[in-house]
Amino acid sequence: MNPEMDRLLREYRDYIEDYLKNNCFVYPQEPQQVLFDAMRYSLLAGGKRLRPVFVFDFCRMCGGDWKQAAPFAAAVEMVHTYSLIHDDLPCMDNDDYRRGRLTNHKVYGEAMAVLAGDALLTGAFSALATADLDAETRIQGVKILSRCAGELGMVGGQVLDMQSESRECTPQEVEDIHTRKTAALIQAACCLGVLAGGGSSEQMDSAKTFAHSLGLAFQIRDDILDVIGNAEELGKAVGADGNKNTFVQLHGVDACQEMVRIYSQKAEAALAAFPDHRFMESLCRGLINRNH
Amino acid sequence: MNPEMDRLLREYRDYIEDYLKNNCFVYPQEPQQVLFDAMRYSLLAGGKRLRPVFVFDFCRMCGGDWKQAAPFAAAVEMVHTYSLIHDDLPCMDNDDYRRGRLTNHKVYGEAMAVLAGDALLTGAFSALATADLDAETRIQGVKILSRCAGELGMVGGQVLDMQSESRECTPQEVEDIHTRKTAALIQAACCLGVLAGGGSSEQMDSAKTFAHSLGLAFQIRDDILDVIGNAEELGKAVGADGNKNTFVQLHGVDACQEMVRIYSQKAEAALAAFPDHRFMESLCRGLINRNH
Repeated sequence: MNPEMDRLLREYRDYIEDYLKNNCFVYPQEPQQVLFDAMRYSLLAGGKRLRPVFVFDFCRMCGGDWKQAAPFAAAVEMVHTYSLIHDDLPCMDNDDYRRGRLTNHKVYGEAMAVLAGDALLTGAFSALATADLDAETRIQGVKILSRCAGELGMVGGQVLDMQSESRECTPQEVEDIHTRKTAALIQAACCLGVLAGGGSSEQMDSAKTFAHSLGLAFQIRDDILDVIGNAEELGKAVGADGNKNTFVQLHGVDACQEMVRIYSQKAEAALAAFPDHRFMESLCRGLINRNH
Repeated sequence: MNPEMDRLLREYRDYIEDYLKNNCFVYPQEPQQVLFDAMRYSLLAGGKRLRPVFVFDFCRMCGGDWKQAAPFAAAVEMVHTYSLIHDDLPCMDNDDYRRGRLTNHKVYGEAMAVLAGDALLTGAFSALATADLDAETRIQGVKILSRCAGELGMVGGQVLDMQSESRECTPQEVEDIHTRKTAALIQAACCLGVLAGGGSSEQMDSAKTFAHSLGLAFQIRDDILDVIGNAEELGKAVGADGNKNTFVQLHGVDACQEMVRIYSQKAEAALAAFPDHRFMESLCRGLINRNH
């Protein structure tokens, strides 16, 4: 990534960090401070802020003022954060650490972690509804995010993933899981960006294709790294997904590397619908090739 | 309640039952059927459907076509249902039964119950967004529901309630808990009805006052019944809230009965803003006096 691209990436990330820190769940007069603390503990835990970056850059590529899309970017990040908090719970993945810090329930207890997740999910829709954009745009945003995050999207994918643990899946089933579990929220981010930027319906379709392809490329790359990668870079134990139906177990490492290449190309091809897509192209290349 | 009122109540209830049964989370082609089953197990578990009835009747009182408000009514009921599923979890109240049936996590497991709740909450906003009402009305609906259900409303009240268990609260603190935990979602229901019915801002304010007063009257009456009521009628063990800060423990039974009377009167007075409020008045009287 060249210096100009790098500068834009930093600008996006700084903007969302400031926005989340200063505008989200700050109520000095309210008594339930521990809830706000729990929500902000996970919301402000850093990370790459990829989904907000997608919102911002798809908005910019469509000719919009990307800073106006900050509530949309924050909403997607809130949904992503709530899903991590609930995924880490003892009854789900039972993780004690995430990104080197104690998970939410290890700090605040299980009950508070459930509630902090619930409030982040609710807060995401509040953020969409109060954005400084016209009513039609905001309600389309609610439609996009609720569909991508809900029973047909992210949560549906989580359920399929849980169910798959006890049996062998077909390649199509594994793709279905990750289309919902991983790609759906990336799709929400890209589509919310197109929406906020006033993009065309052709651009909306291209954003969907882009997100779907990139989401699968990510996931397959993750599966490969889980087998051949090193634990330090990924930040989790190598082979932790041992029992699951992964792309690598179904297709082997070589075929998976070819799949990553094909999906990445498909994602890049979809960017042709956006005039100035050098940043997004460069970002995706960096993300996919980061650990190879 | 006279026969005419009774007929309207049955009409509201039948309509929401049919709507939830036929329109919500029915996707025969999708693979994650167990998720839809878990969501519908709790969503279709009966109950009085009070919140949908509030949505419908406030819409009707404002001169709107109440059947058009069905997606709004369904949304409030989805939020209510998700909150019950999460409240019943082992890490929260750890309840095995609700309304005489096994709780969600006892049937589907804890992980699925967390996810079913998450999907119901997400689905509520999808229902609001896809209602057959103009964009401005729908986005105002998202604002109302997200605010009443979120960190400043129902979830915030749940947290305050949890925190109160380990110490003595002031009367103001106990009122704050129930204003958020119980009254906020009733307020969402009444306000969504006014919104869908095209009511005035004066009617919106009256709906808020009504809901706040009725919510507190309900809660205080519940606290009284917990001390003097019988277990069969309430459907839970008498004295189960023994350790909590209740209105009765703070004020005594006699003062609480007076408080129920005052809050009920305040709720009824707020109904003056609505021309034909006989049904709502009669419903509230029936609800408050039901077990005395």
